[in-house]
Amino acid sequence: MKQYNLCFLGFGNVGRALARLLVAKSAELREQYGVEFRVTGVASRRIGWLANSDGFDVATLLSNVPLAEQSSADNITGWLKAAQPDAVFETTSLNPDSGQPAIDHVRAILDAGAHAITANKGVLVHGYQELAVLARKQGKRLLFEAAVLDSAPVFSLFRETLPAVKLRGFSGLFSSTTNLIIETLEAGRSFEEGLKTAQELGVTETDASHDIDGWDATVKVCALANVLMNIPLKPAEVNREGIRELTHRKVQAARAEGKPFKLIARAKLTGDGKIAATVRPEQILASDPLGNVRGTSLGIHFELDMMPGLTITSHRPNLQSTAYGLLADFINAVKE
Amino acid sequence: MKQYNLCFLGFGNVGRALARLLVAKSAELREQYGVEFRVTGVASRRIGWLANSDGFDVATLLSNVPLAEQSSADNITGWLKAAQPDAVFETTSLNPDSGQPAIDHVRAILDAGAHAITANKGVLVHGYQELAVLARKQGKRLLFEAAVLDSAPVFSLFRETLPAVKLRGFSGLFSSTTNLIIETLEAGRSFEEGLKTAQELGVTETDASHDIDGWDATVKVCALANVLMNIPLKPAEVNREGIRELTHRKVQAARAEGKPFKLIARAKLTGDGKIAATVRPEQILASDPLGNVRGTSLGIHFELDMMPGLTITSHRPNLQSTAYGLLADFINAVKE
Repeated sequence: MKQYNLCFLGFGNVGRALARLLVAKSAELREQYGVEFRVTGVASRRIGWLANSDGFDVATLLSNVPLAEQSSADNITGWLKAAQPDAVFETTSLNPDSGQPAIDHVRAILDAGAHAITANKGVLVHGYQELAVLARKQGKRLLFEAAVLDSAPVFSLFRETLPAVKLRGFSGLFSSTTNLIIETLEAGRSFEEGLKTAQELGVTETDASHDIDGWDATVKVCALANVLMNIPLKPAEVNREGIRELTHRKVQAARAEGKPFKLIARAKLTGDGKIAATVRPEQILASDPLGNVRGTSLGIHFELDMMPGLTITSHRPNLQSTAYGLLADFINAVKE
Repeated sequence: MKQYNLCFLGFGNVGRALARLLVAKSAELREQYGVEFRVTGVASRRIGWLANSDGFDVATLLSNVPLAEQSSADNITGWLKAAQPDAVFETTSLNPDSGQPAIDHVRAILDAGAHAITANKGVLVHGYQELAVLARKQGKRLLFEAAVLDSAPVFSLFRETLPAVKLRGFSGLFSSTTNLIIETLEAGRSFEEGLKTAQELGVTETDASHDIDGWDATVKVCALANVLMNIPLKPAEVNREGIRELTHRKVQAARAEGKPFKLIARAKLTGDGKIAATVRPEQILASDPLGNVRGTSLGIHFELDMMPGLTITSHRPNLQSTAYGLLADFINAVKE
């Protein structure tokens, strides 16, 4: 049995769902993996940098009781020093242009000798190469399974199950928000109603234009290209078009034709070792690998040298699924 | 760099494709995984138990030149002793009723201190529990990724990427042959034409009734239940119905309705810790997780406690894909 100090950097919906999940799965973690844990740090813009080397009571953390009586550090360095984490879950919000402050967070976490587990795709676009080197140097893991396809395995799939394959290209349906808006238009209702549905389901970024204009999907394409193809693709290099130009008439005609619109992200190796990448509305047949990805579901289709096509689809993921992606990373980081 | 002795037990289409693939990927194996290999044994009903401790010339093995001048052992024990394998690829043909002789092969391989890599799903149904214990005792791996969904990761997915999940049930489309026959009937052509197409594509078992009557899919359901749910489900416990009763009229009406027939395998945990399992033709909507699995493609949909639904689809796998499933097992067995 080994005891791990865990910290939460960012404690919004995903962080809280993860805390609940750790408690719910604690017997399994103990029995199957010999893993016990305590939460020695929690930090967010709202609550500051709280540390407790004896471990917080997780129920209290989740109950929203003010934690002002706890010792608070001034910054991440002091916080990490006080909390002595073995692993930190980084779930602060995304800045797609810079990946900050998450990149600085991950660097500090690895420097402090802890595993860094993040759901932040910006980190992968703007800092992956540097941080992967740092993680190796420190003998710690940098893991990020929840960053692209929620809890569905994508990065661990390639890392652990598909040795010696070459990824030639992929297509993905990465945005529930645009999916829901298009389906609302198909049903004859308004763009705004579709967006409202997505926002109520909690699948939309704080700034909805990140979804609508395809930024979110673009950042995911770049994250995948960086990690799985080792090509430092940047968002500006992706040919990007959002869904604002899709009218009722267009989407209903496409649906009637049996080829509904979806916001599809694509990347393909070109002859010269570069990547051609697009994010744009495309008409997709029901028989397409992504043809049955509807509503809040997400999917990715890979073209590999060893397999003509491999598709992973995550159907109606929820907050617990996203949290599970982070939990799986933690277990994979520490299991024998 | 480490040199591995590899042996082929069974040297039909899959074994030969694997030998070609090992040669094609040898530079990658060396550079990425520090793995070199030589083939020190090859055995089949036709060629006997050939061993060569210096390593066979793989091109010669593949060229069908008679290998009579090579030293031949009397049986598997003598063969393993002469060939001294680190890993053996077991690809002999399936006996769905007993899993033999593959189970005896795998036992002998593990007893000889080698990793056992098999594509034989019968082994998992009739011998998994015993052989898994033996593999642990010997400190060797028993791997079988190609047994169910060709090269698409299923077993390694759960083993390596989805820790601490509970599998509640699954549905699968495991039989290209029945898929192709049904699609041929939909197109107004005959059952026999569909079967002939499947046979020409090389996706049909030697005894086609294994596919048509759902035995093949049934054995796969049992293999998955044994390994992923740790429940020793046997073929006789699966409620099985093949596709012989599907007439032109039935399948064309179903297709016109937008709910074509497919031979679907299902298993679901029941309250009492047992499994309810079926293999039968079902009408499936295009929006179903398996709705876009057509032709020679295969798919499986998992229901997990941590995710509402996760689908893996392998599109148009070929002989090289199957061989890759075995190669991936080998690399996963020996990589650090």
